[in-house]
Amino acid sequence: MEKETARIEAFSDGVFAIATTLLILEIKVPSPGTADLGRQLLRQWPSYVAYVISFAFIGIMWINHHRLFTHIKRFDHLLMVFNLLLLLGITWVPYPTAVLAQHWGYSGQKAAALLYQGTYFVIAVFFNILWRHANRAHLFGQDFDSSATERISKRYAVGLISYLICIALVWVSVPASLLGNVALAVFFAVPPKFVIGRGTGEGNG
Amino acid sequence: MEKETARIEAFSDGVFAIATTLLILEIKVPSPGTADLGRQLLRQWPSYVAYVISFAFIGIMWINHHRLFTHIKRFDHLLMVFNLLLLLGITWVPYPTAVLAQHWGYSGQKAAALLYQGTYFVIAVFFNILWRHANRAHLFGQDFDSSATERISKRYAVGLISYLICIALVWVSVPASLLGNVALAVFFAVPPKFVIGRGTGEGNG
Amino acid sequence: MEKETARIEAFSDGVFAIATTLLILEIKVPSPGTADLGRQLLRQWPSYVAYVISFAFIGIMWINHHRLFTHIKRFDHLLMVFNLLLLLGITWVPYPTAVLAQHWGYSGQKAAALLYQGTYFVIAVFFNILWRHANRAHLFGQDFDSSATERISKRYAVGLISYLICIALVWVSVPASLLGNVALAVFFAVPPKFVIGRGTGEGNG
Amino acid sequence: MEKETARIEAFSDGVFAIATTLLILEIKVPSPGTADLGRQLLRQWPSYVAYVISFAFIGIMWINHHRLFTHIKRFDHLLMVFNLLLLLGITWVPYPTAVLAQHWGYSGQKAAALLYQGTYFVIAVFFNILWRHANRAHLFGQDFDSSATERISKRYAVGLISYLICIALVWVSVPASLLGNVALAVFFAVPPKFVIGRGTGEGNG
Repeated sequence: MEKETARIEAFSDGVFAIATTLLILEIKVPSPGTADLGRQLLRQWPSYVAYVISFAFIGIMWINHHRLFTHIKRFDHLLMVFNLLLLLGITWVPYPTAVLAQHWGYSGQKAAALLYQGTYFVIAVFFNILWRHANRAHLFGQDFDSSATERISKRYAVGLISYLICIALVWVSVPASLLGNVALAVFFAVPPKFVIGRGTGEGNG
Repeated sequence: MEKETARIEAFSDGVFAIATTLLILEIKVPSPGTADLGRQLLRQWPSYVAYVISFAFIGIMWINHHRLFTHIKRFDHLLMVFNLLLLLGITWVPYPTAVLAQHWGYSGQKAAALLYQGTYFVIAVFFNILWRHANRAHLFGQDFDSSATERISKRYAVGLISYLICIALVWVSVPASLLGNVALAVFFAVPPKFVIGRGTGEGNG
Repeated sequence: MEKETARIEAFSDGVFAIATTLLILEIKVPSPGTADLGRQLLRQWPSYVAYVISFAFIGIMWINHHRLFTHIKRFDHLLMVFNLLLLLGITWVPYPTAVLAQHWGYSGQKAAALLYQGTYFVIAVFFNILWRHANRAHLFGQDFDSSATERISKRYAVGLISYLICIALVWVSVPASLLGNVALAVFFAVPPKFVIGRGTGEGNG
Repeated sequence: MEKETARIEAFSDGVFAIATTLLILEIKVPSPGTADLGRQLLRQWPSYVAYVISFAFIGIMWINHHRLFTHIKRFDHLLMVFNLLLLLGITWVPYPTAVLAQHWGYSGQKAAALLYQGTYFVIAVFFNILWRHANRAHLFGQDFDSSATERISKRYAVGLISYLICIALVWVSVPASLLGNVALAVFFAVPPKFVIGRGTGEGNG
């Protein structure tokens, strides 16, 4: 049985690995001999920022996926389908990130921010669907820590509403909306306890 | 022994992971400052649809591959070769999907649909070859569920004929043919039982 | 210990998976509305052939790598270095394959064939270095089948000389040289015995 | 517990595998019929060199990552974060390598060398952070070899200072600075003992 969730995790790891590195392909090497290279490199900063942000945020999602699957020990057909949905959302992240980075300061900034925040909201929905299904279908191990899983459920519900607020904030102020997005990334990155003890389960809610 | 099928599965997972994400590279970021970004993004819908469909259909194939390898416990040389053939077919999927998406509504629509349906037929042939070989060569575990494996065999035979019908339908009506393709994807995605019990084998036919 | 070769194999599987799929990125979707799509697709045949050949030949190398690591149970530092060398050679394959496909029938055909055959010779050298080191350093399991490993050693020595002959043949006739290349691929793909028994070791020489 | 570091390693392996092969996408196939193919291929040497160097140096980092995780048996949240930081640095390597290769002999050579050496310095910082955290948080197994881990700590501290010196050397002489970079790669590639015994721990410092 465990071998099977192992394969779901391995496939997911492959998709995460590709998604994190995709944006490096967008960063073009400046051609030599035309202008000052240092200045040319500095002018590419939106691509650099997009790369680092997309890597960091997909990395945080990987940590969350990893955390869920320390609780999920069994699988069923729907779990595989919902996991694929989630991966679909995650591989999409580099695209809106690149759109936002390149339209920063241009007229398309608001549309780009909507696409960006909408993507994160949809991913939050997919994370909730996956997690709620694992709860409903009792896919945890026998020794699962119910207080830890409940903390995850609560956190994910809060995340859902927060990303909706971020979308609404785009009409008020694009920078404020993105600040909310970064705050939410930090919220999902930081666990309540920093060290995961050897045999104590996870305790990351 | 089990370690060895594990490596075949791991390599397959890597190929599946790359195949699912390939089409995201086709989606270009619109350059800023030219026109309304929202409208530009909407005009890219064929690329979006191609990405989602290719991701979904390759995902369904991954679920099927996963299902086969819950039964297949041993391997031989031909299994590796037939698995490579199947993977070759799967990594090809993004290409006809992109061709069809970009030629939708143009004169090339019929040729694109033929290429697309032909690809799925060839993949169905490869799935049948792999599965029939595993049956013939007794590569299952000792406790394999013969009713479950027979249900898979029947389903795969039906799939083969159905994809042939889809190819023929292209000359009658391209939308009808593609509707058949989507229906077949659903047919292969949905298992008879939704929850895979802990020690009961698979039961997905 | 076994866990460690597992990681070497997992990393190799990732590199193999990427190398097999790289050439699909070279196949461009024809733009709609210009000419007959069917004809445009047919004109792309060199790219298709290059994709299938590079997939098939890297797949055969994967099978060989897999076969070596059913014997290799322990690792040392040099094994990791030699494995990296081999992977470097393998990820290079799509490039000379694409060069040969695109220059087929042009003046550059001979240079392209040299680059192509030279690549296979270098990979054969790397396979020999890896395998000879595993022999010298006694990295096999305690129950290793010495007749099977000796058969592999012989086969690899023959391969080395045969690829040298293929290089020489380029000056005589490019098609003859490539025919030799295909024959060698078949030589490395086919094992003496087709079914690998459960507990009988490999027996693939 | 071990299963969990296994997943961190699997995800890292995927990222390493992609990073090593990324630069092959930069090598373009010369179009046929224009000029002497052999000469065209030779003119691409900076791309070839960049590919081999980036593959080799990322390969050496993989060996080092592998070495660290033969000691690290447990994980905590920060280890995952620091590992992601390190992977971010590693996937970045192909970019400065390509910049340096293409600007070699041009006016931008010094800026390119700074970007290149700066990248290696940052990666050395990330390796130190990861390793020092594993030490502080006692993430090793119970039977860990403290002399081996201390040797790694010393080596990493030396590496940090050496990469700083390489950065300073750019203003004196770009070739001297790059020679230092190559020497450091060799320094991190070669272990004190070549064969890793079966049950003796690592002994690679």
